[in-house]
Amino acid sequence: MRILVINPNTTASMTEKIGKAAQSAASPATEIVAVNPPDGPPSIEGYYDEVFSIPGMIAEIAKAPAVDAFVIACFDDTGLDAARCATEAPVIGIGEAAFHLATLIAGKFSVVTTLARSVPAIEHNLTRYGLASRCARVRASDVPVLDLELPGSQANRRISAEIARAIAEDKAEAVVLGCAGMADLAHALSIEHGIPVLDGVACAVRLAETVSALGLKTSKVGGYAVPLPKRYAGIYAPWSPRTR
Amino acid sequence: MRILVINPNTTASMTEKIGKAAQSAASPATEIVAVNPPDGPPSIEGYYDEVFSIPGMIAEIAKAPAVDAFVIACFDDTGLDAARCATEAPVIGIGEAAFHLATLIAGKFSVVTTLARSVPAIEHNLTRYGLASRCARVRASDVPVLDLELPGSQANRRISAEIARAIAEDKAEAVVLGCAGMADLAHALSIEHGIPVLDGVACAVRLAETVSALGLKTSKVGGYAVPLPKRYAGIYAPWSPRTR
Amino acid sequence: MRILVINPNTTASMTEKIGKAAQSAASPATEIVAVNPPDGPPSIEGYYDEVFSIPGMIAEIAKAPAVDAFVIACFDDTGLDAARCATEAPVIGIGEAAFHLATLIAGKFSVVTTLARSVPAIEHNLTRYGLASRCARVRASDVPVLDLELPGSQANRRISAEIARAIAEDKAEAVVLGCAGMADLAHALSIEHGIPVLDGVACAVRLAETVSALGLKTSKVGGYAVPLPKRYAGIYAPWSPRTR
Amino acid sequence: MRILVINPNTTASMTEKIGKAAQSAASPATEIVAVNPPDGPPSIEGYYDEVFSIPGMIAEIAKAPAVDAFVIACFDDTGLDAARCATEAPVIGIGEAAFHLATLIAGKFSVVTTLARSVPAIEHNLTRYGLASRCARVRASDVPVLDLELPGSQANRRISAEIARAIAEDKAEAVVLGCAGMADLAHALSIEHGIPVLDGVACAVRLAETVSALGLKTSKVGGYAVPLPKRYAGIYAPWSPRTR
Amino acid sequence: MRILVINPNTTASMTEKIGKAAQSAASPATEIVAVNPPDGPPSIEGYYDEVFSIPGMIAEIAKAPAVDAFVIACFDDTGLDAARCATEAPVIGIGEAAFHLATLIAGKFSVVTTLARSVPAIEHNLTRYGLASRCARVRASDVPVLDLELPGSQANRRISAEIARAIAEDKAEAVVLGCAGMADLAHALSIEHGIPVLDGVACAVRLAETVSALGLKTSKVGGYAVPLPKRYAGIYAPWSPRTR
Amino acid sequence: MRILVINPNTTASMTEKIGKAAQSAASPATEIVAVNPPDGPPSIEGYYDEVFSIPGMIAEIAKAPAVDAFVIACFDDTGLDAARCATEAPVIGIGEAAFHLATLIAGKFSVVTTLARSVPAIEHNLTRYGLASRCARVRASDVPVLDLELPGSQANRRISAEIARAIAEDKAEAVVLGCAGMADLAHALSIEHGIPVLDGVACAVRLAETVSALGLKTSKVGGYAVPLPKRYAGIYAPWSPRTR
Repeated sequence: MRILVINPNTTASMTEKIGKAAQSAASPATEIVAVNPPDGPPSIEGYYDEVFSIPGMIAEIAKAPAVDAFVIACFDDTGLDAARCATEAPVIGIGEAAFHLATLIAGKFSVVTTLARSVPAIEHNLTRYGLASRCARVRASDVPVLDLELPGSQANRRISAEIARAIAEDKAEAVVLGCAGMADLAHALSIEHGIPVLDGVACAVRLAETVSALGLKTSKVGGYAVPLPKRYAGIYAPWSPRTR
Repeated sequence: MRILVINPNTTASMTEKIGKAAQSAASPATEIVAVNPPDGPPSIEGYYDEVFSIPGMIAEIAKAPAVDAFVIACFDDTGLDAARCATEAPVIGIGEAAFHLATLIAGKFSVVTTLARSVPAIEHNLTRYGLASRCARVRASDVPVLDLELPGSQANRRISAEIARAIAEDKAEAVVLGCAGMADLAHALSIEHGIPVLDGVACAVRLAETVSALGLKTSKVGGYAVPLPKRYAGIYAPWSPRTR
Repeated sequence: MRILVINPNTTASMTEKIGKAAQSAASPATEIVAVNPPDGPPSIEGYYDEVFSIPGMIAEIAKAPAVDAFVIACFDDTGLDAARCATEAPVIGIGEAAFHLATLIAGKFSVVTTLARSVPAIEHNLTRYGLASRCARVRASDVPVLDLELPGSQANRRISAEIARAIAEDKAEAVVLGCAGMADLAHALSIEHGIPVLDGVACAVRLAETVSALGLKTSKVGGYAVPLPKRYAGIYAPWSPRTR
Repeated sequence: MRILVINPNTTASMTEKIGKAAQSAASPATEIVAVNPPDGPPSIEGYYDEVFSIPGMIAEIAKAPAVDAFVIACFDDTGLDAARCATEAPVIGIGEAAFHLATLIAGKFSVVTTLARSVPAIEHNLTRYGLASRCARVRASDVPVLDLELPGSQANRRISAEIARAIAEDKAEAVVLGCAGMADLAHALSIEHGIPVLDGVACAVRLAETVSALGLKTSKVGGYAVPLPKRYAGIYAPWSPRTR
Repeated sequence: MRILVINPNTTASMTEKIGKAAQSAASPATEIVAVNPPDGPPSIEGYYDEVFSIPGMIAEIAKAPAVDAFVIACFDDTGLDAARCATEAPVIGIGEAAFHLATLIAGKFSVVTTLARSVPAIEHNLTRYGLASRCARVRASDVPVLDLELPGSQANRRISAEIARAIAEDKAEAVVLGCAGMADLAHALSIEHGIPVLDGVACAVRLAETVSALGLKTSKVGGYAVPLPKRYAGIYAPWSPRTR
Repeated sequence: MRILVINPNTTASMTEKIGKAAQSAASPATEIVAVNPPDGPPSIEGYYDEVFSIPGMIAEIAKAPAVDAFVIACFDDTGLDAARCATEAPVIGIGEAAFHLATLIAGKFSVVTTLARSVPAIEHNLTRYGLASRCARVRASDVPVLDLELPGSQANRRISAEIARAIAEDKAEAVVLGCAGMADLAHALSIEHGIPVLDGVACAVRLAETVSALGLKTSKVGGYAVPLPKRYAGIYAPWSPRTR
């Protein structure tokens, strides 16, 4: 099986880290291809950055050769709906993946993400997925995304402190890490705090395998229908639905 | 007061129609400027088309001269959150505008939109805005967006029939028309059916005036904070937050 | 355009203050007429006071000459449903007006009202309007309504402190002031705290203009239908639906 | 034990019928006193009628001698919150009584009420009480309230037909009759349709006994606190909180 | 009237205490029979214990002679749905009983239960009953169930402290005690804290009387239908639906 | 990896069929062990049957040798919470498995189950899981569970007809089959109707693999904590938490 893991931001070092996390989480027989678009923001922190990452992400889907499933490796599940229109193969967001699996091992979970500005988008996703009632609280650790790439940063300590608060104040039974860049921290934090700590990248890779292995494809009836053929103008002409 | 009304699709005839509807709905002292991006889809029918309309729409916001408020003239409220990050001026979507005003004159409303594929995005918006409990049902009339531009189409008849069903089956006390291209139909349909029929373009223009006249600006604390300065790669470099 | 702003309590000084706030918020061409009923409570603090303010408020609607829209200037939106049955003209409550506009400029807002006893009625309205999910918390400042009329009171300071708590604890992106008597405080508090602070009186006046200018009328199908003709007994005989 | 059953409309024949239904539902040791206010509407059909029935209803509470509990015998639970502020004794609405008891014997119930205009107020109450998720649908039988007093009307047949639809279409496991005037029909309809059919008057009388016998009183902390002392103006002066 | 009160755990001293509380709460003419199954856990603290208490509880229902109603005296309302399938007589859980009655005397209540592990099951019940919106918070006092039987324990003090927090932090207008073993504490705690404090045993007994006196029976249409006849294997053969 | 698939009913032929479906859905390296308890009902149709299947199911968990994960192969997810208390290994219900995966490939799904009496339990689970907003409707096909084992039954035809209605009336984008006994029908029905049709057994097996492979264990903080040691009485003594 081959899974394309798309980091929608343009930071290659982060793509590499995500790719490694994805490969180590995947079944032995699964080949992970990790890519990022050449155009767009170096990190996605809030709604504005999202907009400029999605066309590039769709492009990666469109030009992917034979692939069994896609993973969108941004915790905001950036562009997930459009991606599902663009392909019949399953598309899994790392945010939704972690939320769904958390509900299978805990009654209630909290999310620990990066910046306060990202909290509303995550809350919105939870509401939309229907899982808001299972999430005790979305917490910001005030760690910028790219600080997670820096060796000497206090990122790990701040995230751990926020997890402790989630357990004490929210009565969280599990914690979801709210950024693809935290993929390498989950295991140690789980041991430190004695509750499950979920990383979305690993969750999404395994869920993508699962959906694909079950022969399930994205429904083409309703909201995820194949885009109607039409001719896009200007720089987006190559993405015109009729040409694909 | 000057309001920039952005039709996020690239069909100039529709922009012109929307502009006229907007001007005729506006206060006499308000100047409406109606624009559309040069790049992107000619109509927005589903999630995929949305993606390729938003960067162009943000560009129109960024290059707008002195403007008091913005209106996004697509019923899906395409890119609304990102637009609010991009400016301090109020940004009003035509979908949300019609929903909010409908609740002020009716206990319960239904929406009549174009294609079935657009229903999920509208339902999602209603849930997110908090107004799903006020909407009896989102109905598709099976009229493609650009058919609304054709003189001899059956569009009007189909929409009217769907309104009749909304009154009979949903007990709707008002109906919201779910497409910017239906702006010119609201008045006649309201008289025909004896209940308020709301057009989002008119609602949004007046709401934009209202929010601006009250001196209210988009909050810059939390989800709509000014984008963090960073350098975007490739074709999106001009939209890098630091350069604005 | 002429808008009747009804202060449902009987305190003329508060009516005058509200009238001034309304006029200064209105479009230049709008004439504000501010009235209060001669019968009823001098302030509305809780459910009991509400009951004895509504018949007088309906009377003001009934005897109003040519008026384009009505504003109910009590933050509990006292008697709003009955008022909508009593007229075809739009009727806007100051509570709902502020809630709806807050959602257009902020993802999440908190309310700062007067006394703890008023909190449940406001929470109930938010649930009913569908906007409870957009309100982080309704907070009481423990300022009695009529203290807002006293020059030397600590009202302003207490309200400001409560706004600070709403920002820190609720992550509120905007704050709605929960009493008509606070109309004159919004601007200064907004500057002090750096987030939008909304006053319901101003919001309602502009929304009333908007709904009226759009030619929208209260739906007469369903819950707001014209009252069935019948003869009321005793002191309420003059309000019998058949006689109007 | 003595329970005051207040019919908030002024139709004495209906008060008498309700009083009989209440007495026959009550424990043998309970004395039912059924009253109606002298002022107000002869029937309550919609929000407008409600307003003019509540002050009279509060008056009946205020002048009641030693009473252990109150029942408000209008299915809209008209003025219930204000009534709870007016006394420490329990106050039970017939709507809420039937809803709560229905959930104890059925997973899901439907309501069959009189006119379409009354449906929104009932739906609103269900939402507020928290029981909307337990109610499959609120249905109108198009029977005006006072037709229930007429010997030869088709009321009974229409209500029965609507119950049949509730079972078939809503999968209702029980039905609540949505008008005090239907109190005498419940038993026969239950036998006819083979599911529990609940009448609010009987339910409320027994619930009032229950709450009173348990020594429970209306909480005076929060929304139902004793009204603050103040002097009401004009015709409502006798109801000034300070005088009671 | 005869009511069977089933303590689903096997601790006879607790059954006796519950029986006394039930009898003292009941109408004089009501005979309370308090039983517990011979098989199962001595206390119910969490989901696991629940499983092994339910078959024994159903057995008590099945072998009950002429009984007018049943009360399940475990605050988790253990096995309530199955019990309703097993009989036409009303079955009332002490948790639901207290929740419903609390909403009749207070706008919002909190629950104070025993251990943290029991909180999720109670929250789940509240959601299912539809009353989650009326409950401010479910709080654990960290008092094990059987400590409530010990004379010198600190149970009472801890529960009282938690009630104080519920009033101060949750703005609770009433408190529900979340364990059958707290039945004897409610009155004193209510006086101490000045708000209604509800004990589920008393509430359930009176509600069972109420439902039975009204002639209401558990609906046999839908989820509570009579179990289909079939032959159970092994030790559960005696409970085969066909044999009863 | 070894997964224990527990059919909580006692029908061995169904266990065998489920085991085969599970094995064919599993990864090649996964060993499926399918068992059913010796005691209990031959099929689970409603709440009553559930009670008598759970102790036997817990027994199967308790006596399982080295097992990596458990699957509960009843669509009601019978006893899921208790099972999670009984082990640290992941436990996946086939109902929840299908619901979660359906949301990853469709915006909205419907469920087609066996009998009307099973609908409320499924609706309840959806509410509890937080996924009720994603399910358009739970439909009964009126096919008894064990008819699915009969060669000549009309089961397949009835289920197909109900799927057609779900697509037409509910606008379902995917359908979940609501019974373990339907495991062999999903593929053909998906091809017939052109939308994803999900079988819970296959979904649960793959999800169990996923959760286990990720090293995730059931949280032991909160509702799924290890049962407190205590001595159960009578026939359940062997299941006393202290002895395990």
